[in-house]
Amino acid sequence: MATHTFTPTRYWNTLGSHPVALRVAPGDTVRTTCVDARGRDAQDLQITSPGNPMTGPFYLEGAQPGDTLVVRLDRLLPNRRRGWSGVLLAPNVVEPRDVGQLAQAGGYFIWNWEVDAEVGTAKLNHPESPLHGIELALDPMLGCLGVAAEGGQAISTATSGPHGGNMDYRGFREGATAYFPVFTEGALFFLGDGHALQGDGEICGTGIEVSMEVQFTLDLIKGQKIEWPRGENSEYIFTLGNARPLDQCVQHASSEMLRWLTGSYGLDLTQASLLMGQTVRYDLGNVFDPAYTMVCKMPKKLLETLR
Amino acid sequence: MATHTFTPTRYWNTLGSHPVALRVAPGDTVRTTCVDARGRDAQDLQITSPGNPMTGPFYLEGAQPGDTLVVRLDRLLPNRRRGWSGVLLAPNVVEPRDVGQLAQAGGYFIWNWEVDAEVGTAKLNHPESPLHGIELALDPMLGCLGVAAEGGQAISTATSGPHGGNMDYRGFREGATAYFPVFTEGALFFLGDGHALQGDGEICGTGIEVSMEVQFTLDLIKGQKIEWPRGENSEYIFTLGNARPLDQCVQHASSEMLRWLTGSYGLDLTQASLLMGQTVRYDLGNVFDPAYTMVCKMPKKLLETLR
Amino acid sequence: MATHTFTPTRYWNTLGSHPVALRVAPGDTVRTTCVDARGRDAQDLQITSPGNPMTGPFYLEGAQPGDTLVVRLDRLLPNRRRGWSGVLLAPNVVEPRDVGQLAQAGGYFIWNWEVDAEVGTAKLNHPESPLHGIELALDPMLGCLGVAAEGGQAISTATSGPHGGNMDYRGFREGATAYFPVFTEGALFFLGDGHALQGDGEICGTGIEVSMEVQFTLDLIKGQKIEWPRGENSEYIFTLGNARPLDQCVQHASSEMLRWLTGSYGLDLTQASLLMGQTVRYDLGNVFDPAYTMVCKMPKKLLETLR
Amino acid sequence: MATHTFTPTRYWNTLGSHPVALRVAPGDTVRTTCVDARGRDAQDLQITSPGNPMTGPFYLEGAQPGDTLVVRLDRLLPNRRRGWSGVLLAPNVVEPRDVGQLAQAGGYFIWNWEVDAEVGTAKLNHPESPLHGIELALDPMLGCLGVAAEGGQAISTATSGPHGGNMDYRGFREGATAYFPVFTEGALFFLGDGHALQGDGEICGTGIEVSMEVQFTLDLIKGQKIEWPRGENSEYIFTLGNARPLDQCVQHASSEMLRWLTGSYGLDLTQASLLMGQTVRYDLGNVFDPAYTMVCKMPKKLLETLR
Repeated sequence: MATHTFTPTRYWNTLGSHPVALRVAPGDTVRTTCVDARGRDAQDLQITSPGNPMTGPFYLEGAQPGDTLVVRLDRLLPNRRRGWSGVLLAPNVVEPRDVGQLAQAGGYFIWNWEVDAEVGTAKLNHPESPLHGIELALDPMLGCLGVAAEGGQAISTATSGPHGGNMDYRGFREGATAYFPVFTEGALFFLGDGHALQGDGEICGTGIEVSMEVQFTLDLIKGQKIEWPRGENSEYIFTLGNARPLDQCVQHASSEMLRWLTGSYGLDLTQASLLMGQTVRYDLGNVFDPAYTMVCKMPKKLLETLR
Repeated sequence: MATHTFTPTRYWNTLGSHPVALRVAPGDTVRTTCVDARGRDAQDLQITSPGNPMTGPFYLEGAQPGDTLVVRLDRLLPNRRRGWSGVLLAPNVVEPRDVGQLAQAGGYFIWNWEVDAEVGTAKLNHPESPLHGIELALDPMLGCLGVAAEGGQAISTATSGPHGGNMDYRGFREGATAYFPVFTEGALFFLGDGHALQGDGEICGTGIEVSMEVQFTLDLIKGQKIEWPRGENSEYIFTLGNARPLDQCVQHASSEMLRWLTGSYGLDLTQASLLMGQTVRYDLGNVFDPAYTMVCKMPKKLLETLR
Repeated sequence: MATHTFTPTRYWNTLGSHPVALRVAPGDTVRTTCVDARGRDAQDLQITSPGNPMTGPFYLEGAQPGDTLVVRLDRLLPNRRRGWSGVLLAPNVVEPRDVGQLAQAGGYFIWNWEVDAEVGTAKLNHPESPLHGIELALDPMLGCLGVAAEGGQAISTATSGPHGGNMDYRGFREGATAYFPVFTEGALFFLGDGHALQGDGEICGTGIEVSMEVQFTLDLIKGQKIEWPRGENSEYIFTLGNARPLDQCVQHASSEMLRWLTGSYGLDLTQASLLMGQTVRYDLGNVFDPAYTMVCKMPKKLLETLR
Repeated sequence: MATHTFTPTRYWNTLGSHPVALRVAPGDTVRTTCVDARGRDAQDLQITSPGNPMTGPFYLEGAQPGDTLVVRLDRLLPNRRRGWSGVLLAPNVVEPRDVGQLAQAGGYFIWNWEVDAEVGTAKLNHPESPLHGIELALDPMLGCLGVAAEGGQAISTATSGPHGGNMDYRGFREGATAYFPVFTEGALFFLGDGHALQGDGEICGTGIEVSMEVQFTLDLIKGQKIEWPRGENSEYIFTLGNARPLDQCVQHASSEMLRWLTGSYGLDLTQASLLMGQTVRYDLGNVFDPAYTMVCKMPKKLLETLR
């Protein structure tokens, strides 16, 4: 149960079989940092190329294809004061006929936010805006986390899949646990793309993007094969489907939940369906990236009554 | 501000220009009842044909095309003890390869629930199930409500559109307010398809279906043209997009929210986008009906700081 | 086998149970006319309101719900010289980021074409365009045809469904036969929205729109229940799926073809699948209307070897 | 203009920056072979792991990111007699409620075909089938071809993207020319997944799969940046969009065609739109793989009148 402090020296824009950054044992904790989505660090210096550069990969001893990697997000803390966000709604999230006026308003550009991790707020820092100074409550999360992709692939950190990646789901906040299928020896865990906060869907193309201090603990479930990322917090267990269109995300997330309930909660297909039908909740992860994300959640309180 | 008690004598399976059931004035309240989705009433007698039979239409004096109909859901109360729900997940909400095992498990069938409106629970009443007796908390809602459709259409209560209809959104519960575009003189408001409770997405094809006592109050916003249904509760204003795929629901709901924020909250396109990007929430209405439903929500607390 | 000449005096913008225009017997032929999509007639006079106004409904003696209506398109002839078309690609058929430049180029507007039915050409008649005078070969078709919709609905002629409607499929040209499910006594057949020619997908929102002389013959297949429109020409039998997204159109069209092959060609599910897999062709009807259209085609020559 | 004969010794299941198989100069021709989709060669021996193993990569001298790779398919010839195909329709191409009966019929399995490249037929070789002996005309094509993916990715040959890949488009037959964006020095061209013939959409998950002799000629267009694969045959120029849902494939293919017409044919956005609107054709590549494929085609005869 060692605690490692790891200072990254290089970053990755794909999730694949890259040279190992650090080897850890199940139960070990890692303290490290992530640059922001454009490759800027705690000093706001661009130290690597943009496009969700990842810290990692972390090699988990004993992890083999067919296992499940467990990632507890112990601590997520913005480590600089300048955050930034896209301003206008992305062209794919509005009615097609609305795209013209968004293009006319400037298309894609960014504004700055003042992130105060102690007070717990992000304040718009754009004096030309009538909203200058407006304050939102921080809710730090990781936009992109996952493992080396299946079949020897190296997948861009712009998108996501069964291996995780750029899911941009608000639920990957401090205190949450993420589960990923292991496709490669050592699993090769990557993380980055910190958001000080984000709306559902990442509909302006970004959260409030910021570099971060991160502490996480890795663990291993031997011989448990999962097909899509899963997660857990104090209230819910959840599953993530990453695809297009959103309908297909729903299908993956729902089928993965069905597998979870029948595999681990002693429910047959019929009882699991019945319960899901009346108690399931869905969250929208993102509707911006090349693959969208929907999340299927089941209340733990209910499931505990079943054991 | 009269209060009308209306006892329906016939029901409708389309939302169109049917003979008026009751004429009311803006501000008037109506107490009435709805049969369940299969046309069964408080005595569990089948009194009309199945397929979301609607109570109504209610004609609102003064409502003209281009106005907005306001519907406050004052009271929603299941008025009988037998509820029922679909059991198995619908074939379109799971991975295509999973449909085979669902078909083998029986495809579509229903089980009963004991609905206790006083205690506030629905209890599974299916002795053959290992879950027999499991209790869920009531959260009564209307699955289908809306107005006569645009352009002289009569649209099935199986589906939804700009006129509302079968949106199966949990947010249409007691205390919520719904807004609909008026397409016909008098608006012609319909309601029905009561659910004692429902999971997100209505993924088994039903909530816990039950007949209901309903009290609602109609009002009118003259000259305010909206394009998709809107709503409001104590925490959020929200907009609904009804279409397929879900991506398109997101587009309609997001564009409608953009119109609301720029039309009524003094925000230009840029500020409205910025705020939506970091604070919006999406709910999944249904992913089962011929048209799916996604809901875009903005926190009222935040918006109040803008006025 | 009477031949009726019918001069319409009113038109319909929904496909529903409207007052019968003409009653005909199975085998009867009808000669009539259709106004263009904006309600302009052979003299280019606006005689009814725009939005695909339909000629009809034609009541077929003996047609009952559960039967199949047969429509042979004997003759389709543009009956005036001015055609018109949308110019710019619709915002939903290009990459979202491209919509801005289309909006800047003017969004939606129309140009005229000179339609010469004798020579068989449409010539661009817009002197300001560098393409002024360019000639395309006529290929007249009906954009919108179908029957009163199911369940007592009245569905806008802007869209389509199991009842047919605005499918905008080039294959509904002279010589083709269309089949529709009958949902109402008499079937109630409607037709209109003539195109002098059209590209696949109707991606500018129109074909070359023109009024038409039409001759068609109605027939009846008693007791044959079909679920989606079907058709036939000298080379192919085909089925049409009308929905969104296109993936779902493919599903409806493919399932309907599977039903056709297993129902009428003596193939079991396995043999029908095998044959479809290696020989099927798909056409894109439209990707512009509220419901899109995909067409599944099987070569008749191959199928004849099976009988 | 050398002609190289290349005998592959290893194969790849991703399109990425793998060790170069052969370096060639612009204008050079390569004669080589491809194993079938399961890794079986001309002797029907499994010599590599299944999943569309690729021959290559071929390094084109002088190719740099931002250029266009040109691939002329000079010759495609099945080089063994046993072909095989999936039998049942894939679960995602039929109505969800139909999936149950397909699962019951066996789900996924394959049958053999006798491929006679001299006579030009494939004959079903499955004595248990009532269709045993049925003959289809050969139309050999490559299901999977393309270049190393952008951004240092390695993408599975199960799917496709801007780099090409598993598009399963019948149009990539002998005589056709394919164009790919170059993302890596040398372009790194891969090819494989030969089909003796295939229906539109690859709706049973396969064509008639067979190993092949292939001859192709590579060329280079310096400084021409394209965004999606393009192609050309004697009748049409065409563009391919690879994504989900099919609607998005249409968007990519249409936008790419718009870029081609405005970039190379002297048309502005308006004239290109107008022409596309009335003359474009779409083909369905596949509706089975993780990314679907739609093809946008414009008639060369028409375009020649513009030069």
